[in-house]
Amino acid sequence: MRSEESRSRRRGLDRERDLARKLWEMGFASMRAPASGAKAKRFVQPDVIAVKDGAVFVFEVKSRSELPLYVDSEQVEKLSEWAARARARAFIAVHYSRSWHFVPLGGIERVGRTYRVDEDDVAHALRLEDLRA
Amino acid sequence: MRSEESRSRRRGLDRERDLARKLWEMGFASMRAPASGAKAKRFVQPDVIAVKDGAVFVFEVKSRSELPLYVDSEQVEKLSEWAARARARAFIAVHYSRSWHFVPLGGIERVGRTYRVDEDDVAHALRLEDLRA
Repeated sequence: MRSEESRSRRRGLDRERDLARKLWEMGFASMRAPASGAKAKRFVQPDVIAVKDGAVFVFEVKSRSELPLYVDSEQVEKLSEWAARARARAFIAVHYSRSWHFVPLGGIERVGRTYRVDEDDVAHALRLEDLRA
Repeated sequence: MRSEESRSRRRGLDRERDLARKLWEMGFASMRAPASGAKAKRFVQPDVIAVKDGAVFVFEVKSRSELPLYVDSEQVEKLSEWAARARARAFIAVHYSRSWHFVPLGGIERVGRTYRVDEDDVAHALRLEDLRA
């Protein structure tokens, strides 16, 4: 676990844990997905899910020191399918500038084979306190 | 991964994957929890969650060749808390005699510091086709 990729992966995992814990402290039932491995990738899973009083929220987690960030279109489409089955609200959860920003999946721009999340998306994103059943 | 404990853990993981995949094929949005590790245990997570049209189901997964089986009371109580927050229906998902049986958490008997799931509970349990939104 000393390569750059491993460090990045571990940091991502820590962020997912942080988000799941914060949501739990807000009264949500929350759950983190298994680390993405070869087997896991065959099935679509959000990084984090949170449920309260029957309202379901799902998150693809990204931690960045700079924007814009790009999300693979296949990832976005798979998360959309998961959310549609569950009737969940789906977000890109961006950890940026030391806090969480929740960009609704429907509001981001597709650019070729990726979706682009920029400063403006993050500025208008929901915050933790906006996530309510 | 050659010890008896590792084999048992891997078999449990395969069962969780099997259940998550079957539920996905039935139209649920499903997700498996991370393997229980030291860090994961501090937070409560069901083994598998499934959501369809806003109805939430959570499962503690047990695979057995013999019954009765015993579930630690703390595990049951934590799963109950998760389900209460989410307004989910909670089950012990028992893989026994080559098929899945879903025993509602509310219907099992507490015996000291464990909950006991016996032949009778499994005989009266829900089956995959009974899980509906």
